[in-house]
Amino acid sequence: MRTSIATVCLSGTLEEKLHACADAGFDGVEIFEQDLVVSPMSPEEVRALAERRGLTLDLYQPFRDLDGVADDRFAHNLARAEAKFRLMNRLGIDTMLVCSNVATLTVRDDEVLAAQLRRTGDLAQRYGARIAYEALAWGAYVNTYRHAQRIVDLADHPAVGTCLDSFHILSRGDDPAGITQIDPEKIFLVQLADAPVLAMDVLSWSRHHRLFPGQGGFDLPGFMGHLVRGGYDGAVSLEIFNDTFRQSDVDATARDALRSLIWLQDRTAALIARDPSASARMTLSTLPEAAPARGLDFAEVHTDDPDTVGQLLDQLGFAFRGQHRRKPVQLWTQGAARIVLNSGPRVSGTSLSGFGLQFPDPAATVRRATALKAVAVPRHHTADEQPLPGVRAPRGLEVFFSPAAAEPAWQAEFADPATTDAGLIRSIDHLNLAQPWDAFDESVLFAESVLQLVSRPATEVPSPVGLVRSQVLETADRAVRLAVNIVPQTLGGSGYPEHVALRTDDIVAVARRARAAGMRFLPVPQNYYDDLAARFPLADTDIEVLRDLDLLYDRDDGGAFLHFYTATVGRVFFEVVERRDGYEGFGAPNAAVRLAAQYETARRRPSRERTEGGV
Amino acid sequence: MRTSIATVCLSGTLEEKLHACADAGFDGVEIFEQDLVVSPMSPEEVRALAERRGLTLDLYQPFRDLDGVADDRFAHNLARAEAKFRLMNRLGIDTMLVCSNVATLTVRDDEVLAAQLRRTGDLAQRYGARIAYEALAWGAYVNTYRHAQRIVDLADHPAVGTCLDSFHILSRGDDPAGITQIDPEKIFLVQLADAPVLAMDVLSWSRHHRLFPGQGGFDLPGFMGHLVRGGYDGAVSLEIFNDTFRQSDVDATARDALRSLIWLQDRTAALIARDPSASARMTLSTLPEAAPARGLDFAEVHTDDPDTVGQLLDQLGFAFRGQHRRKPVQLWTQGAARIVLNSGPRVSGTSLSGFGLQFPDPAATVRRATALKAVAVPRHHTADEQPLPGVRAPRGLEVFFSPAAAEPAWQAEFADPATTDAGLIRSIDHLNLAQPWDAFDESVLFAESVLQLVSRPATEVPSPVGLVRSQVLETADRAVRLAVNIVPQTLGGSGYPEHVALRTDDIVAVARRARAAGMRFLPVPQNYYDDLAARFPLADTDIEVLRDLDLLYDRDDGGAFLHFYTATVGRVFFEVVERRDGYEGFGAPNAAVRLAAQYETARRRPSRERTEGGV
Repeated sequence: MRTSIATVCLSGTLEEKLHACADAGFDGVEIFEQDLVVSPMSPEEVRALAERRGLTLDLYQPFRDLDGVADDRFAHNLARAEAKFRLMNRLGIDTMLVCSNVATLTVRDDEVLAAQLRRTGDLAQRYGARIAYEALAWGAYVNTYRHAQRIVDLADHPAVGTCLDSFHILSRGDDPAGITQIDPEKIFLVQLADAPVLAMDVLSWSRHHRLFPGQGGFDLPGFMGHLVRGGYDGAVSLEIFNDTFRQSDVDATARDALRSLIWLQDRTAALIARDPSASARMTLSTLPEAAPARGLDFAEVHTDDPDTVGQLLDQLGFAFRGQHRRKPVQLWTQGAARIVLNSGPRVSGTSLSGFGLQFPDPAATVRRATALKAVAVPRHHTADEQPLPGVRAPRGLEVFFSPAAAEPAWQAEFADPATTDAGLIRSIDHLNLAQPWDAFDESVLFAESVLQLVSRPATEVPSPVGLVRSQVLETADRAVRLAVNIVPQTLGGSGYPEHVALRTDDIVAVARRARAAGMRFLPVPQNYYDDLAARFPLADTDIEVLRDLDLLYDRDDGGAFLHFYTATVGRVFFEVVERRDGYEGFGAPNAAVRLAAQYETARRRPSRERTEGGV
Repeated sequence: MRTSIATVCLSGTLEEKLHACADAGFDGVEIFEQDLVVSPMSPEEVRALAERRGLTLDLYQPFRDLDGVADDRFAHNLARAEAKFRLMNRLGIDTMLVCSNVATLTVRDDEVLAAQLRRTGDLAQRYGARIAYEALAWGAYVNTYRHAQRIVDLADHPAVGTCLDSFHILSRGDDPAGITQIDPEKIFLVQLADAPVLAMDVLSWSRHHRLFPGQGGFDLPGFMGHLVRGGYDGAVSLEIFNDTFRQSDVDATARDALRSLIWLQDRTAALIARDPSASARMTLSTLPEAAPARGLDFAEVHTDDPDTVGQLLDQLGFAFRGQHRRKPVQLWTQGAARIVLNSGPRVSGTSLSGFGLQFPDPAATVRRATALKAVAVPRHHTADEQPLPGVRAPRGLEVFFSPAAAEPAWQAEFADPATTDAGLIRSIDHLNLAQPWDAFDESVLFAESVLQLVSRPATEVPSPVGLVRSQVLETADRAVRLAVNIVPQTLGGSGYPEHVALRTDDIVAVARRARAAGMRFLPVPQNYYDDLAARFPLADTDIEVLRDLDLLYDRDDGGAFLHFYTATVGRVFFEVVERRDGYEGFGAPNAAVRLAAQYETARRRPSRERTEGGV
């Protein structure tokens, strides 16, 4: 499949956009008129730069309000179009997008519209160009792809074809199955956009909230399936109007964009494979097969204060398993929970820097990640150490791929690999990661495609500094669970704490042991326990145990959830959770209590926080 | 009118919220349950703090899903309610908000619902409390205020009344006129919220997009008019769920909130005054009368580099009118355009720090601003200098109030007050101000209420770093025009340039003179002129004049607009505009060209910018 993208999707200058699209690996771009008009590059320079970077220029767009007008206005429109055909000759672009009339339509007659497209096609031909007519969902007269196609068919001109845009079709709830009836030679371009399912006016939805395929609620593999079955073999281009992407890093957005098309091809190919009657001409690139993750291998904390973090782990019952043979890295374990403390030379502060996932075949997962343009983490290992390949998730988090094993081989690189323990902590239950407000869609697509996780519906949690959006991503069997918090814009993502949640079957014992060892808990307000007593039929004695140990409580249909939080070191803290009777949530109603307590603590101890608890 | 506000409107801890509400001048607050649950303050402490700060606690809220359930669940609900009545006794709150059932309703029978409210009223009475029943717009059965009132009337219990919320009524397009039919003694509380007119699902609209009165599209003076005419005399409380307010500075938001209620009272009083039949019991505070501004008196630029800014003004034809007699401040004028360059000791960089407006009676405007809780700018003047009172607009901009005069008296404080000039610049056409993304609603309310400006519909302009929202605010006669730009979130508001637009009747002469004087213009790309030729029927020679002088062009129905921009010094630049044949816009289609050129310039000259052009 030839991949393309409209320059309007990205931030920066036209020059920056072209470089970012080429670097990401796109085959071509659509030149959005506004980007050219404001650029100091001449059309010839744009053409030359695109050629040098190996990008085709697939479309010039948009040309508005051409059709359905009286003769005098149409004459003016033809003059406008001719100026653009001349410009396209300078750019080396042969196709111009013509959007159905929104603002100036006065004639509602298909024959008239077809005649006007035909005359524009004649003019285009003189410049070696052609026009792709597109029905906007809010077009004054033509607003469905079927209607646009009727007019293109009536025009019956070699330089007049159609442009299909998934947003304009799917946002209206229109059935895309009719696409297979269109002569594929008359489809001059396909534009793809996903979008969240929102109940709002279509124009605002389209102009501000479009997403890359796989990030929203539209069935784009199904849409692509119709195109491929219909015999389409041209470029598939992204046209995403999104307020966030417009202001995000251009290179990251371009990479995210191409990943969405790679992912879409794989899913479309899977769909087509189930329908042997299809006679596809388009070649869809598919991803290397790789079984999903079996579990969390380890969590890695970067810290310039390993003593303080180590003390917390000790108080939670972790065993120190020694220093790495070669690097300033400590291993702490308890049950299957493995925490790596990395105090390398460039580490400053304390933060959750990454994690390892166990896969049946890590090499296959690496191949898949590479195909999805994930960026490898450069990591040196000596000949007698485990390779542990990894990739960088959006905004820098490192994810490593290890072989599935109860006792990972890399533990042998630490001083005391043979120690076994019978601690109360069984495993890492989940990781809670923070992402800045503009990384949400990119992160979810990365997790779904590269890490093969499934996303649950997002929730929102009030905090003293704004709403926090929380997105759970997990394997189908829930062996791996991540909670990604999108932090309020005023925080910008820095300073917001992340945590490792540890699972036990006896949280009261863990809490008592930690208290006896002098651990600092995150304090829970008394009002919380009064409210708990009103909400749940708990015995007073149970409430008192919770209150005494700063434990939080939640219930779902089947089971109960008890958990507590430690104080924060730098940007990291720990949670201990006990899941009873199949409770599968994350205690979301209690997250607001945690966020408020952390805010209170930070407010009262703005400067002592880092050193407190140190040796 | 007694003013109140729900704690959920604001950011921070409950303690911070209470202090902010008291500092702003509210009479009372509603305690939002979540804020109490996550607070380390005991109910007794909350009560004591509120008493000390002179705040009444007007409501405890919300109590959900009480009514329309089967007996066993209702018994559980009564137990829940009793726990809350006990808590309210500790807080010293006598009224609890009961929202119509959304989630657990099984019984659709008004008699049953009324009986359940009656039993809850009995229970409440035992604690000296009462319940205010509110129809949520998305209630499962009860979702209109009329239906809620029918059930309250059926319940016929002294401890059972209603709570009216303007959002739940107006978002449904419901007619609020029926409010006058309700016994005012049965209205236990009124909650007010404005909202932008959005086509989206009501729940999301309500939870994320509410605004303070006067900031949205609802007719709240009309709503209040019905309440006052109906004889209501209780508290009027703000309940605003807004994602931005939740993360903004708590003190600024509380001040903004109270200003909205002061402004609303004045407008409601004006409405009531036109209807002499009304028998209002509520006392509405009204604002001192003050005639609107007659014009812009001056623009003030803070700069630590007055030589560079002065050189630009000189190149634009401004005359240096001398130093201030006492302070490091320069005055430059041309026609009625007056620019003050302030290089005071704490000034760093170059920024647009404020402006003066001319009023027929500045003292009246000061009284009005003070009544609207505007914060005065402390400004020392000696006995023989003009007083020039001023207020601080949101985010620090200073606005001064001067007497209307062709030659302002304060000019006498500069060395050369008598100079007259016959320059090509006539006046300041408008100011273009930048505000961070979270200041929009506050800024517009401030401009409308304190400065008595009228807002036009907002527009959006694409820039290389995101969409810029532009809001024009002006006097009815357009003698004063401000364009407020809300800058993309990634920029955060710092570094985004602001400008002074100067009006001339001969822009070509101004541009030629400036070019001859060696002034640096913002460069306009050639592609812009090619596009202009396609869009407008301009002669080739006209285009060449524009191209030669880096002029931009726009048309509206009647007239034409020509303008150019200077290079930027620090965060300030100048624009020169010529309005032909009654053109009343601001060249919005060209703003994207300017933003892209400024981005290009900053990218190419990241460090030289500040010093370039210096002496």
